[in-house]
Amino acid sequence: MMIRTRKSATGEAPRERLLAAAGAILARDGYNGLTMERVAAESGVAKTTLYRHWPTKAALCMDLYLAEAARELHDPDTGRVADDLRYVVNTVVRLQTRTIAGPALVGLIAEAQIDPSTRQAFLAEFAQRRRAITRMILERAIARGEVRRDVDVDLVIDLLGGATTFRLLQGHAPLNARFADALVALVLAGAGKRK
Amino acid sequence: MMIRTRKSATGEAPRERLLAAAGAILARDGYNGLTMERVAAESGVAKTTLYRHWPTKAALCMDLYLAEAARELHDPDTGRVADDLRYVVNTVVRLQTRTIAGPALVGLIAEAQIDPSTRQAFLAEFAQRRRAITRMILERAIARGEVRRDVDVDLVIDLLGGATTFRLLQGHAPLNARFADALVALVLAGAGKRK
Repeated sequence: MMIRTRKSATGEAPRERLLAAAGAILARDGYNGLTMERVAAESGVAKTTLYRHWPTKAALCMDLYLAEAARELHDPDTGRVADDLRYVVNTVVRLQTRTIAGPALVGLIAEAQIDPSTRQAFLAEFAQRRRAITRMILERAIARGEVRRDVDVDLVIDLLGGATTFRLLQGHAPLNARFADALVALVLAGAGKRK
Repeated sequence: MMIRTRKSATGEAPRERLLAAAGAILARDGYNGLTMERVAAESGVAKTTLYRHWPTKAALCMDLYLAEAARELHDPDTGRVADDLRYVVNTVVRLQTRTIAGPALVGLIAEAQIDPSTRQAFLAEFAQRRRAITRMILERAIARGEVRRDVDVDLVIDLLGGATTFRLLQGHAPLNARFADALVALVLAGAGKRK
């Protein structure tokens, strides 16, 4: 298969060097400083190789976000939905405010609006991958009877992720642990079993 | 005063012509089709006048959004928080999916990420103006005892506005009346008085 041959010919090392260079630029200069030209120049990898891995800046930002999230965020499976969700929302808040995941997400969202073809990739891949852990947490909570069986899991994920992303993008109010805990408490008060 | 003289010399007519041209471009070609050059050309107003009113595309998008919202959205004051919020969220969903307010908001958010000076204006003016009606609704609901006195009003606004904006930007799930009604029900289940 042509695609497999191409992938194995490229190898993993240039990809890692490109991601490292892009991450360093994002950390130093933010989303505005990130250009495909600079990533190629600072990594020492050919621009054609860069574009083979990521045809757009949005695709590059998506992988930067997912790599950072994969390092920092796991399914905690504590046995209690409140503890699980507090861990996830607090970790996402920390990712977005203290790591390059913040500017990567901001960049990805901005680029996705400008380039409709990006938006499709964004929709299909990124959104589902970001939602997977919270979905598992909520499905376990429904099975244990902590969350009502008729709750719309996608809506709950939108409440948690939407409020957090809203503060990241608008910057109108603090994005911190106090916000994360209050967010989880209010959403679970709505989604939990009536006492 | 210099600013007043400048404003009255400019008059209201060119501003309205510029807004009408920008709205028409946005409706026809979306956010990507909107450039300052085209707005000036299609309105027949000098580019210097355009930039005097709106120094950036983001500022122009903000006024396009606010003008559309002012026409379509008012404080319903029905006497019931559930009816008030259902009206507001459904109207915002309709604004974002059926009018130029959608591409204007998408454009504004994307531009605000790219240009940090825009983000300040976005933060200070736009976010507060967008939040004003929902704030009044929730404060009346607290006074009437429909919503708990200790509820964080800003957090509730973030849940409603965040989930809606999240679907608009990510396009991962439908933004429709069913979503709007379920969103209000879940948030009020969390924020309402315990039965």
